[in-house]
Amino acid sequence: MNTIGSELRLTLFGASHGPCVGAVLDGVPPGLTVDLARLQGEVDLRRPRAGIGTPRAEEDRVEVLSGLLDGRSTGAPIALLVVNRNIDPQKYERFRTVPRPGHADLTARSKYSECADLRGGGQFSGRMTVGIVAAGAIAKMLLEERGVRIAAYVRQVGRVLDPEDRDVTAALLSRSNDVRAATPELAEAMRAEIAAAREEGDSVGGVVQCIADGLPMGLGEPFFDTVEGELAKMMFAVPGVKGIEFGAGFAAAGMRGSQHNDPFVLVDGKVRTAKNDAGGILGGITNGMPVVLRVAIKPTASIARGQRSLDLETGEQTDLRIEGRHDPCIAPRAVPVVEAAAALVLADLSVRGGMLD
Amino acid sequence: MNTIGSELRLTLFGASHGPCVGAVLDGVPPGLTVDLARLQGEVDLRRPRAGIGTPRAEEDRVEVLSGLLDGRSTGAPIALLVVNRNIDPQKYERFRTVPRPGHADLTARSKYSECADLRGGGQFSGRMTVGIVAAGAIAKMLLEERGVRIAAYVRQVGRVLDPEDRDVTAALLSRSNDVRAATPELAEAMRAEIAAAREEGDSVGGVVQCIADGLPMGLGEPFFDTVEGELAKMMFAVPGVKGIEFGAGFAAAGMRGSQHNDPFVLVDGKVRTAKNDAGGILGGITNGMPVVLRVAIKPTASIARGQRSLDLETGEQTDLRIEGRHDPCIAPRAVPVVEAAAALVLADLSVRGGMLD
Amino acid sequence: MNTIGSELRLTLFGASHGPCVGAVLDGVPPGLTVDLARLQGEVDLRRPRAGIGTPRAEEDRVEVLSGLLDGRSTGAPIALLVVNRNIDPQKYERFRTVPRPGHADLTARSKYSECADLRGGGQFSGRMTVGIVAAGAIAKMLLEERGVRIAAYVRQVGRVLDPEDRDVTAALLSRSNDVRAATPELAEAMRAEIAAAREEGDSVGGVVQCIADGLPMGLGEPFFDTVEGELAKMMFAVPGVKGIEFGAGFAAAGMRGSQHNDPFVLVDGKVRTAKNDAGGILGGITNGMPVVLRVAIKPTASIARGQRSLDLETGEQTDLRIEGRHDPCIAPRAVPVVEAAAALVLADLSVRGGMLD
Amino acid sequence: MNTIGSELRLTLFGASHGPCVGAVLDGVPPGLTVDLARLQGEVDLRRPRAGIGTPRAEEDRVEVLSGLLDGRSTGAPIALLVVNRNIDPQKYERFRTVPRPGHADLTARSKYSECADLRGGGQFSGRMTVGIVAAGAIAKMLLEERGVRIAAYVRQVGRVLDPEDRDVTAALLSRSNDVRAATPELAEAMRAEIAAAREEGDSVGGVVQCIADGLPMGLGEPFFDTVEGELAKMMFAVPGVKGIEFGAGFAAAGMRGSQHNDPFVLVDGKVRTAKNDAGGILGGITNGMPVVLRVAIKPTASIARGQRSLDLETGEQTDLRIEGRHDPCIAPRAVPVVEAAAALVLADLSVRGGMLD
Repeated sequence: MNTIGSELRLTLFGASHGPCVGAVLDGVPPGLTVDLARLQGEVDLRRPRAGIGTPRAEEDRVEVLSGLLDGRSTGAPIALLVVNRNIDPQKYERFRTVPRPGHADLTARSKYSECADLRGGGQFSGRMTVGIVAAGAIAKMLLEERGVRIAAYVRQVGRVLDPEDRDVTAALLSRSNDVRAATPELAEAMRAEIAAAREEGDSVGGVVQCIADGLPMGLGEPFFDTVEGELAKMMFAVPGVKGIEFGAGFAAAGMRGSQHNDPFVLVDGKVRTAKNDAGGILGGITNGMPVVLRVAIKPTASIARGQRSLDLETGEQTDLRIEGRHDPCIAPRAVPVVEAAAALVLADLSVRGGMLD
Repeated sequence: MNTIGSELRLTLFGASHGPCVGAVLDGVPPGLTVDLARLQGEVDLRRPRAGIGTPRAEEDRVEVLSGLLDGRSTGAPIALLVVNRNIDPQKYERFRTVPRPGHADLTARSKYSECADLRGGGQFSGRMTVGIVAAGAIAKMLLEERGVRIAAYVRQVGRVLDPEDRDVTAALLSRSNDVRAATPELAEAMRAEIAAAREEGDSVGGVVQCIADGLPMGLGEPFFDTVEGELAKMMFAVPGVKGIEFGAGFAAAGMRGSQHNDPFVLVDGKVRTAKNDAGGILGGITNGMPVVLRVAIKPTASIARGQRSLDLETGEQTDLRIEGRHDPCIAPRAVPVVEAAAALVLADLSVRGGMLD
Repeated sequence: MNTIGSELRLTLFGASHGPCVGAVLDGVPPGLTVDLARLQGEVDLRRPRAGIGTPRAEEDRVEVLSGLLDGRSTGAPIALLVVNRNIDPQKYERFRTVPRPGHADLTARSKYSECADLRGGGQFSGRMTVGIVAAGAIAKMLLEERGVRIAAYVRQVGRVLDPEDRDVTAALLSRSNDVRAATPELAEAMRAEIAAAREEGDSVGGVVQCIADGLPMGLGEPFFDTVEGELAKMMFAVPGVKGIEFGAGFAAAGMRGSQHNDPFVLVDGKVRTAKNDAGGILGGITNGMPVVLRVAIKPTASIARGQRSLDLETGEQTDLRIEGRHDPCIAPRAVPVVEAAAALVLADLSVRGGMLD
Repeated sequence: MNTIGSELRLTLFGASHGPCVGAVLDGVPPGLTVDLARLQGEVDLRRPRAGIGTPRAEEDRVEVLSGLLDGRSTGAPIALLVVNRNIDPQKYERFRTVPRPGHADLTARSKYSECADLRGGGQFSGRMTVGIVAAGAIAKMLLEERGVRIAAYVRQVGRVLDPEDRDVTAALLSRSNDVRAATPELAEAMRAEIAAAREEGDSVGGVVQCIADGLPMGLGEPFFDTVEGELAKMMFAVPGVKGIEFGAGFAAAGMRGSQHNDPFVLVDGKVRTAKNDAGGILGGITNGMPVVLRVAIKPTASIARGQRSLDLETGEQTDLRIEGRHDPCIAPRAVPVVEAAAALVLADLSVRGGMLD
């Protein structure tokens, strides 16, 4: 359903072309100073950029409806609202009859009957992630008070792959370019990859890497509420995500144990590992090293060039051309969403583990 | 915690070298005929095979403590118990002081204090998955009544990669060989890869692919309880899993939208897709195509050859050599676990979606 | 926390003297026609009446932010918002230092630190129930489609006790008077009881009875999610409720089994009971008879006459006189809240039991 | 379902006339010394006493299957098992056709179809509470480490009412007599009341009062997970409970605010109240005073004298005479169950509130 989390709990509502999108974040401990300018700044990072994003112009102005008093959390649920301004629901009527490949038009209708709101993807739209980013900004502030930093960046766009593993600091630097690449050179190459796809009326996929450092050892609840499991469940709610891996991830399949095992070492009196192929997690529990995850993001399903689909009324094959506003690559805009999603999960596990008391 | 699922709910208990391991499966609709011989057969598939598995000899005899009457489910929780017979807890004492790289010794102690049961991994042991396989066998029977089939096989071991995508029938055929490969030739090559690792006192990783066909369109609960999210959370509870992907998965990052989108077609009067890069899931909801997932399994952490670790008492680097019984490759034994885990999640989503009424 | 329900899930947010109160109702099946005028009508029933209610003047205009399209539910969460207009937060400052007896001022501060929003009870205020009534109106519409009717009335105010057991029809007739009594004569007597308390600067308690008829046999989930247990948990969230009983309730303690047991009879081919001391529930499951419950509501904690309290800063006993706007008896305004709360629980159990498919 | 609790979670399994009853308690912090003799002693308190209890002879020997090592909790789930020895399932066959008034025979069959286990009430039997008592004994030990004491006693049996409010110490003294009354005189009178009912082939109801002292201020989670709501949900799972009230409870309906409000006073430097009509809970949160609750327990449904029921096959009214073994009054045996249930809830809220760290 639309609620996730155990002791820090997020509920989303709204629709892409309805009156608003929003979120309720419950369980924020009282007394947290919530910097609203910074919260808005995180939400702004999700907005499309010229050239590589959709031309849909949304201000994404966040209103706080409850849970704050004099700039600090009261312990009550924090409700966040973003009014939709640039809506255009009519153009989606056709997709009731001719479902868009790669979209939820058909499955949504199957699940919710004819009454499903399919306008711009309705409840399945990437626009729902505004609430994740806004709520995640608060989770980040909560974690930062304990010295935890979380940042993500684009590691791959199509054929352009960042060959290096970046840390939180490098990931934060990706904020200086619009494709959220770790370096200006990679940004340039990725921008070109996106432009090439767009020019052909096509889209392209990518990989977002996210790192959290400063986490204590001991977060995560075996057997089922593992750090990996909780993060993965949250990430697959982000539209377009089709895979997730931690540390060495799928590369571990080709490795030997002697190669993959991270030896324990003492660093400044603390037990750490000499490398981090485990991605900061052993037995589903944080081990004090940075948590490192990567999510695979499929190419945007909406593309301008013609596609084969089916007219559900006639049963005939038909050619579909989607004129709408859309991003040729979602990965750059997914970066703040992945960061926020990770922050929400790690803050929830911190509350559960008594780390935020 | 040790419970997962909404309307079909699994609770695990036990420890690797305690008196038993077990599971409680709640929410099984009344009237299901439970074939206990077949249930035992599934559990037997998880047992180690000569040459490629640990020499620990466990009968893994499943007792049903509740929830069945005259061979059929009553609607009450089904409790399943497996007594541990071949335990040897003493040899694990040393790992309290010198944690094994790649294992949860240190994180478990950090989370649960000195009182954690670290014997053979305790609650973090792969042995906990016996309960998953036993309960999953019941979930499978539940799904089969609706025409759903689930099967998994080993797609990769170390450098040996099965180049083809297999369907449920091919996956079922993997039961004919001990490494659970799709063909005898692949089995041969994978067995050699495992043997090579073992001979060097080492271990090797792998990839397990799982397919479920016959699922109706419409399973899954947006926004957070997606089919991918629920499956992923469950899979990361399986010890050794470090990544999961659906359909094209990480390969989607390198694809164009025109390539990744699956065109809708009419097959026998039903809407299907011409290919299945989505892995049977659109917008987090099943689309009527087979659900296809792959999990990355790291090389067994326990290896015979020497490794660098840390003596927590002295703070000195030390050389660790693990004499214990262990599998040089977990992937073959993970196959029935992955199948069972998938069955549990898909059956839960089926109950939630009213598909089992 | 602020979320309740399994498959029909309610989340509340807001505060008594913050910008708004609101609710998110998730899990409403698609296609339900939501009559907004009627929803507003239910919320209006909760508003204070002249003479027996607080003079705080709130319009309680409900806005629907999401989840409806063309007057019907889409299957996505329904967000409901009521803007607070007549707020006056200043006057509550004093209660930080001198907590009001019978209120949550002290416990809220203990739980949420100095940052708790104590203005008018903040998150503990009866005003939070606006969201319950609005969401419950939708739950009622859902249940009515299946022939279920739910209604409540005031059975007792102070020393005035309605000696008869009323059915749903009689309970609905209580809408014709402002104290929500079953007859005009009882209304008169209860009004006098309330007036007497108010004239003495005091308040008075009461009992609300709620009946649901038309429910099928078989709702409720043993062992813990019983009909009684789920209803009770919800009802104790309603501020002022201090007791709940079903059917004969506490009177059963003085009864013999031969007296309390309800004999089974056949009515129009259906198995019913000849009387209903069980309150429509056997073994935690509905038995096809009306579900009957009563909740005890304590006298309003805010009273005009002087009370002894404590100055937390000086540690001195002090006399407290509360000038605020308040109801001399909450019971009449609790009637629509109890109805709505019951509807939410019974609709959730109906969804879980597959009764709404 | 059969699981309850958030961070301290109880799962029950078993059936009255199946092979066993049992429980899994998850979330017990590591390092708790579990006194098994005392645990067994609590379970023994639930066993029937000569004259006032059923002649069914069960040893109720508790086995610990997991979660303890060297007498201390490991942090992993604690599984508890009690084998049923004195079963006699045959005699219940008749109740499939002629349901017993006051029992769940009919509703269980309605919910679970013909496959329901109705033998001795199956999953609806009071025998399921063995697991609650065993798990609750551990919860008690957990709370006692923090100075919390919980005890219950029988306050009413039929027409015999204990006129005084007892504290924890007085409640503990009820262990000295078999009806669990607060004084020998009351025990005598209650025993006579039970004997009178039994001699007439009848049963009688009662009220159990439970008190917990030593709780800190601040337990409970508004808005829905209140102390009252969580306790109530749990208590209604105990077979036979039909009402619950806190502090003044239903008597509050007849009170004035000036009478019901508990004035704040300073006691040994701590803020307390001069009396406790709130039952230790304000706004759903503990206020540092003892938590006081009473549950109404209906007369045992099984009675020896003839009752009217219905033959479901013929549709004819029929006379039913229940020969089985049963308690003429459940209240005395419910005392340890109510204590244990309260302990489980309060320990869960303590973990959630960070009070057990």
